Amino acid sequence: MGQELIHFIHTRNFPFARIRLFASARSAGKEIEYKGKSWKVEEAKPEIFDELDIAIFSAGANTSKKLAPEAVDRGCLVIDNSSAFRMDPNVPLVVPEINAQAVNQHKGIIANPNCTTAVALMGLYPLHCEFGLKQFFAATYQAVSGTGAAAIYELEEQVKAWVSGNNISPKIYPHPIAFNLLPHVDSFLDNGYTKEEMKMQNESQKIMDVAEIRASTTCVRVPVFRAHSVVINAEFKNPVDLDVARQAISDFPGSELVDNPENGLYPMPIDFAEKEKCGVGRIRRDMVFENGITFWVVGDQLWKGAALNAIQIAECVHQNGQLKVM
Amino acid sequence: MGQELIHFIHTRNFPFARIRLFASARSAGKEIEYKGKSWKVEEAKPEIFDELDIAIFSAGANTSKKLAPEAVDRGCLVIDNSSAFRMDPNVPLVVPEINAQAVNQHKGIIANPNCTTAVALMGLYPLHCEFGLKQFFAATYQAVSGTGAAAIYELEEQVKAWVSGNNISPKIYPHPIAFNLLPHVDSFLDNGYTKEEMKMQNESQKIMDVAEIRASTTCVRVPVFRAHSVVINAEFKNPVDLDVARQAISDFPGSELVDNPENGLYPMPIDFAEKEKCGVGRIRRDMVFENGITFWVVGDQLWKGAALNAIQIAECVHQNGQLKVM
Repeated sequence: MGQELIHFIHTRNFPFARIRLFASARSAGKEIEYKGKSWKVEEAKPEIFDELDIAIFSAGANTSKKLAPEAVDRGCLVIDNSSAFRMDPNVPLVVPEINAQAVNQHKGIIANPNCTTAVALMGLYPLHCEFGLKQFFAATYQAVSGTGAAAIYELEEQVKAWVSGNNISPKIYPHPIAFNLLPHVDSFLDNGYTKEEMKMQNESQKIMDVAEIRASTTCVRVPVFRAHSVVINAEFKNPVDLDVARQAISDFPGSELVDNPENGLYPMPIDFAEKEKCGVGRIRRDMVFENGITFWVVGDQLWKGAALNAIQIAECVHQNGQLKVM
Repeated sequence: MGQELIHFIHTRNFPFARIRLFASARSAGKEIEYKGKSWKVEEAKPEIFDELDIAIFSAGANTSKKLAPEAVDRGCLVIDNSSAFRMDPNVPLVVPEINAQAVNQHKGIIANPNCTTAVALMGLYPLHCEFGLKQFFAATYQAVSGTGAAAIYELEEQVKAWVSGNNISPKIYPHPIAFNLLPHVDSFLDNGYTKEEMKMQNESQKIMDVAEIRASTTCVRVPVFRAHSVVINAEFKNPVDLDVARQAISDFPGSELVDNPENGLYPMPIDFAEKEKCGVGRIRRDMVFENGITFWVVGDQLWKGAALNAIQIAECVHQNGQLKVM
């Protein structure tokens, strides 16, 4: 995630004066490289925020809850990639293509959304603007890189072991992930859904500012390295028109229309890994909902779902002049 | 498929006098083995049906359309695994746990359902009996063995090439399947759905004898060797009770309840490959439908989805005394 952030700060020409990297005491001293430059990781302590304008947090909800208020007290804006503040009414939850204006209400912290939700919204939001979203169903196909580097390694090692006729016990996931599926992403809640599944409804409501939208989601981990995919069945308030729907997806800055299935053209994880836009295809009338559209969306959850969106938030803040960058 | 059929004829003690295997002239002469016995494949010609009581067809819709009427004319009952006759009003489409009595109406041909539909119904039907199914959404995660032996080989070869740092062009699928997802199973229709996706609605209606049920399905091929998985969001006419739902799944002969997700227990392809029952879990109240249940079902599409179901049909016919077996 650190490397992806450095990538976008450079490729998007973010007007930074200096990039500094922080981690726990355990990781301090490590070197991170990007295109021949290198940064030494420093220890994250409250005092360091006196010297920073923007801090992008990507270290889990507990670290964010502990350190983000310290940063804000010292005048440093926090863009937080964890779930710690996303549903806090005092914290804007921002996908710049959808609610860039929400950054104006920040009180020092701006939350970056859940990766699967961000990817799904690249298809849902343009359709919502056209037809008025009422409710939706989602089934996800989530890549192992969403879990982190150790999970990528686990899939690699399990596949290599399979090729050489060996068996490897899973460490990161509770069951093997190679050639298997786990209907289990994040921890389970009392209602039988996982936290990840509930984020799709709760964060979609907040980002699109439509409190009444209901969403029923099932999240499944699949043996894919990078890019999350989602099947969505969406019901709208108004009659739908598929040509208008396709045009809306095409025109939306966060999505790319890939929808010529007869010729084998639809979005796939191998094509949308390391792409800024999310791919939307298989657009058709839903068989159940009268005003319904069924579609398939694929996006790099480390880019639009995390690092890219965080840098886009920083750009909004900078463009709105809400932050002095030296 | 031939081997799976021989497996079930033996393990279920089907009262056969003799097993004979038939294929096109090209494959005639090949030897098929099962537990030390072997059979020589004969050429399928119309005359051979004079000597047979039951013929199980598994050679595609065109072969079925050509040869099944020849068999019937010669007094041989056809159990057809292709899509050729499934929606023919004169042909029963049978899943014995659901509509065994339908075999009584056969006029010489009985159709075996689509594999994904058969697996999904092992969860849907017991819930339909309790609460009255109204409509449902399905997103599938389909194993490569559903395409056939060449697709299993293709996934194996692509994974081996990846491990050794090589690249292999896809032959069976239009795109790589290793570490990828293809929202493309079967050919596309004018309405934007694939044939496979429409079978879920059409065959479910016929098998459960509920013409009004609507279903919106998206079928996705995943890099899994064996066993299909399906996410289902189902709406019922009557209020649902999750304890009753779980009991119904437990009591149903075609399904096994695996539903303790907090302890990592849910059905997975690696556990339901080569199992007669389909696994149902992740049972919870749907977030959108008031009378709704969301669940996850996994089943061996070559067994319950094909060979096992075909032999179960043969058993029904035999038990009903509608066929003299020597």
